[in-house]
Order: sequence, then C-alpha cells, then structure tokens
Amino acid sequence: MQSPRAFNFSAGPATLPISVLQEAKQDLLSLPGLGISVLEISHRSSTFDKILNQAQDNLRDLLSIPDNYRILFLQGGATLQFSMIPMTFLRNSGKTADYIVTGAWGKKALKEAKREGSTRVAWTGESDNFTRAPLTEDVILGKNPAYAHCTSNETIQGVQFKYQIDTGDIPLFCDMSSDFLSRPIDIEKYSLVYAGAQKNAGPAGVTIVIIRENMLDKVPSDMHTLLDYKVHVNKNSLYNTPPVFAIYIVMLVTNWLRNEIGGLEKMSAINQRKSELLYDVIDRSDGFYRGHATPDNRSWMNVTWHLRDKDLKTTFAQEAQERELLNLNGHVSVGGIRASIYNAMPVDGVQALSDFMVDFQSRYS
Amino acid sequence: MQSPRAFNFSAGPATLPISVLQEAKQDLLSLPGLGISVLEISHRSSTFDKILNQAQDNLRDLLSIPDNYRILFLQGGATLQFSMIPMTFLRNSGKTADYIVTGAWGKKALKEAKREGSTRVAWTGESDNFTRAPLTEDVILGKNPAYAHCTSNETIQGVQFKYQIDTGDIPLFCDMSSDFLSRPIDIEKYSLVYAGAQKNAGPAGVTIVIIRENMLDKVPSDMHTLLDYKVHVNKNSLYNTPPVFAIYIVMLVTNWLRNEIGGLEKMSAINQRKSELLYDVIDRSDGFYRGHATPDNRSWMNVTWHLRDKDLKTTFAQEAQERELLNLNGHVSVGGIRASIYNAMPVDGVQALSDFMVDFQSRYS
Repeated sequence: MQSPRAFNFSAGPATLPISVLQEAKQDLLSLPGLGISVLEISHRSSTFDKILNQAQDNLRDLLSIPDNYRILFLQGGATLQFSMIPMTFLRNSGKTADYIVTGAWGKKALKEAKREGSTRVAWTGESDNFTRAPLTEDVILGKNPAYAHCTSNETIQGVQFKYQIDTGDIPLFCDMSSDFLSRPIDIEKYSLVYAGAQKNAGPAGVTIVIIRENMLDKVPSDMHTLLDYKVHVNKNSLYNTPPVFAIYIVMLVTNWLRNEIGGLEKMSAINQRKSELLYDVIDRSDGFYRGHATPDNRSWMNVTWHLRDKDLKTTFAQEAQERELLNLNGHVSVGGIRASIYNAMPVDGVQALSDFMVDFQSRYS
Repeated sequence: MQSPRAFNFSAGPATLPISVLQEAKQDLLSLPGLGISVLEISHRSSTFDKILNQAQDNLRDLLSIPDNYRILFLQGGATLQFSMIPMTFLRNSGKTADYIVTGAWGKKALKEAKREGSTRVAWTGESDNFTRAPLTEDVILGKNPAYAHCTSNETIQGVQFKYQIDTGDIPLFCDMSSDFLSRPIDIEKYSLVYAGAQKNAGPAGVTIVIIRENMLDKVPSDMHTLLDYKVHVNKNSLYNTPPVFAIYIVMLVTNWLRNEIGGLEKMSAINQRKSELLYDVIDRSDGFYRGHATPDNRSWMNVTWHLRDKDLKTTFAQEAQERELLNLNGHVSVGGIRASIYNAMPVDGVQALSDFMVDFQSRYS
C-alpha cells in the first residue's frame, strides 16, 4: 500500500472524516488534561456530560430540531428500532401500522412490526425490483393508522426519497440510517426519526433516535426498561451504560459537519455534486453502465449500477481495488456495483472513481 | 496534571491496559497495511472476520470454553440481558424462575424477569444490606424452575461469590459483568453467562454472552430478531452491524490477558494480591475504615468501605483526586468509598491508594 489511506466505498461501517480520526487518535491515551482515555471515562462523569451535551447540541443545530423533540443515543442499531417501534406504538393500540416499503430495510422493518399487530403496506416497490420511491399520490394510507413508517434512503438498492412525505396528523416514523445528516430535513414532519450512526454520523455501535415528546404519552407503562423510550428520555440516554466512545465520535463528526463543512445545506450541495460525478458517467456510457434506481430516485449516498456485461463486474471491482478504490461490490441481493459516498467521502475519492469508470469503459467496451 | 495518565478507580467504564490503548492509538488511522481505520471497516470484511475470530478464540482459551458453548457479542449491556433471558426462557415456559439476589444488579435482573412470568427469590441479602453472598446450603431452589440466576460480583456493594454455585440439572444463568475474566471459572456449571465489557473486557458498548448450545432448543420461534439468541448464534453475532470497535478492543484486551499476563490463573493471583493491599489497610485501621462486605465475600474487583467519621469522606475523595487517584466515591446507594480495581488497574495504582489511605488515617484519626 503506497498511500496511508485508501478510498473506502463501504456501505457501512463507512469512511469517517480524516480530521475526526486524527483528533480521536491524538487524544486516545488521555483526553486533554484528564489523564484518562475516552474509552475509560465514566458515563456519569462531567467529562462525558459535556460530550453528550455537545453531540446533542450539534444535532439540534444541524437539523434545526425544536425543543419538543428529544435526542437519544441507543444501542441495537436500526434493527432494534424495527422492533421497539411496533412494541411501543402498535401492540395494544387496536390500530394498524402502515409501512411504505422502498427496499430491503423497509421490508425488515415491516417483518418485525407484524409480530406486534396488524400492518398494512401503504406502498411497495417490490414488483419494480425496488428501483423507485412512490409519488405522494401513490401512497395510500389507511384510516387512522397507529403510525406510518418509511425509509428515506434504501442503502442496498440506492433508492432515495427526494421529497419529504407529509402524513398530516398521522405520526410518521422514518428510518434515516443511510442519509441522516446528508441534507436538511423538516423534522416536524416526523414523530420519530432513527439512524444507525455507522454511515454518516459515527462508528457502528450507536443509534440516534429523535422523538417528539407527545409520542411519549403513548408508551405503555409495562415496557422492559431498556426497550422503553420514556426511560431513555427521562434518563437522557443514561439509564444504563451508553456506548461512550461511539457517542464521542458522533460528537466529533457533528463538530466537523457544523464547523468545518458549515452545516447541512453545504453538505447537501457537496453530496449532490459527488453523486452527479458518478451518475453522469453512467448516463454517458451508452449503456455500458446501467443505473439500478430510476433517475428521479437516485440516491446521493449509495450509487448502484450494473455493467452491461455482467461478467466484467469482478474485473471492475478488482481493478478498482488495485487503485485503492475499495469495497465497490454491490449487495448480493442486487448484484452489480455499489459506491457508497457518504458525507465523509472526499470529492477526490469520487473523482478518482469516476475517472476509473471512464478509463475502464474505454478499455473494455 | 503532571503525569500523562492518572489512576482511574471508576466502577465502569474503567481503566484499560496501557498497551491496549497504545496499540489502538497507533493503528487508529489505518489498520496495518489496510488503508482504512478499524472505525470504518465493514463488519462483513475479512479484516473484521479475523478480529471477531481472534476475540472468540482468546475467550475460549482464557475461560476453557468447550465446543458446545457459543460466544456472542451483543449490544444493550447486561440490562438488555436482564430482559432477553426471561423473554426467552421464562415467558411461555409454564415454570418459575429462581433469582439469587446479592445486590443492586441482581434486583434489577429480577425486576425485568417479573414482567415475563412467575419468579421466586431463592436467596436475598437485602435484609443484611447486601453485605454478603449465601452459603451453598442457604440457596433454596424451587422445584423444576425454568432457570436459576445469580450475579457473581455485585459492583455497587462489592460482594462477590467465592465459590461457584452448582445447580445440577437446573440451568444456571450468571451476570458476570464485573468479575468476568478476573479469575478462572468452570463454565460448565453455567448454561448462560453474560458480561458488559466495560469493566474487565473492553470499552462500553458490547456485551459478551456465552451460551450452551442446548439452551437454543428452548428459544421460541417468534422472538423479535434482535432479541433472538438463536439468530445471533446462527449469524455468529453478525445479523446486523455489531459494535465493531468495541469488539476490536475486546480482542486487544484478551490478547493482553493471554499473552502479556499469561492467563486467568495469573490474573487471579494478581487481583487477589491487589485487593489484599486495600483490605489489609482497612483491617489494620482500628475501625477508621470499615469494609462494607463481610470478609468472606469481599470482592477482588470493587473494594467498598466507609470512614468511621462519615464527614471525612469528601475530604478523602478530594485529597485522593489531588494525588491523581480518581473516581473513588462510592455509589450513592451505599455511600462511602469504592475502589474498583479491575484487571487493568496496575499494582502501582493500588499501592498508591493503599499508601494514601495509611497517610490519610495518620493525619485525620
């Protein structure tokens, strides 16, 4: 390996900002003036208080989160949220939950909900091989459902909502794992938003949940403690030992977004530009590369495509790897190539991949 | 602060071996030859495979775990295990679960079990203010319970079992969070052992579960996926994204235990010696210091004591802090002083605390 750092297009855990890694490295034996590593500090210490508060403050600022929303740091990934949501808001509700399914993760969320009560599919892209998201008018919500659930960006298929669903008075829950913090959102359209950190917000091991306070009134009183949103809100994510280090990295990443990037409008513009570098190559390739998602729903985070000659896929990924463009194999369920270009992927990395795609086509078409 | 590292007596998250922190620091921007940080690697990568396998191999070696036990790395801390255990093995069992309660954590485990079915207290130290563990003959198990549950070391009270309970054919589940890897155990006495890593095994954010394979036959088929031990076993802890970095640190800590310390017999001898340094000062203090636990059940991990003059407690902790002996305040529910001296606390740190205790007494008695 020549350069010390490769370009990592992994879908998650994913590349982190180099300045975040450098700061974490510098302070790993001891936080400044403390004599203790962040890996060793008590979650009840004033040092961790400051880290937690800063991370929450950064998220509140970046996403313009109003005071009637609470920000939690939980464990178990988005997968545990797939369960906690219906355990809390569907079981015993006497209602049905509506799921908008745009890919593999939406399907998984629905699967867990079915264990807890009645569900409806308000829209699914399954018959189209999950290549698109619905138009507003395509989503048919039930009458007075317990909630509606959507996935803002499907990591595996590379299908992203380009508008924000408005469900009016119906509580809307959204899995934003793979495009969280990639663009501004109108948080007030949602009653609960959640995201595994390991794409845009930090390392694996912490899940960010943003919940509107009025949803807490609906939490049953007999929840298991660790599955009880109310407990986590009342204890400010400190009922039990939280994943301290992962939250520390979320703080550093959101510091970077706030102070180095300058907020989500700017991040969003960079992300759009990065994705266009790749989609342009696909569109100009005369069918040598074929995008998986329909153009209107192309993800800015996970760019998915096939090669016309499917046999070339392995060569493509292999040659890319030799150029230190890593982890480009598509998910096994979709095949082809997937380039995950989250916030921390530098423009240089995407440009290098784009150049390689053009060069590869010139040699193999 | 003069020295770069203080002695951290925190009950958890707790001090880690300096060589572990140094290796993690050195490789934080890129694992050797990889070009990617361990914070960024895919959990599906061959690099992580090696980390996971090495961590499992180390644990199997250190604890002499036979092949019919599986080693899992889960999220949610011991607290989620408090719930997963009765959800899995009590609910719908038609049986009662027996809890042996030696302190605050045992009580919490029992509280969650009550949500799922019938429970019995097979022994409790509550009337003795949780100062001791039962003798074998004190534990009265029910007839054919679903399982029995114990806590090998109570972190808050500093009460530790000095023998291993034998429940014969009754499945025994044990929360070993705060003395896991501190001494050899006979794993075959247990059907399930669990431990939050943040005391002896690593940082906060990962829970180690060791489960006997025959227990998997009892897992109901309708468990939520993330709460399903069978899924975690079948997927080797990789059903969803695991806490990669925390598992990496567990690998480094268990490398250290295996290669630098030389195994649990040696670790155990060191731990006993360290704890004696403090208990000896307490016993020779003519009542200036008063141990919380009865001598037979004094923890080697969490040394708890009161000062005869309770008003001196704040002064004690404050003067200790000035000497870089940190986090000595006892848990609020017990009061007094608690020195947590897990595996990674150097003998020098305990000697410094012991010297300070003698000096403090000479000045204030």
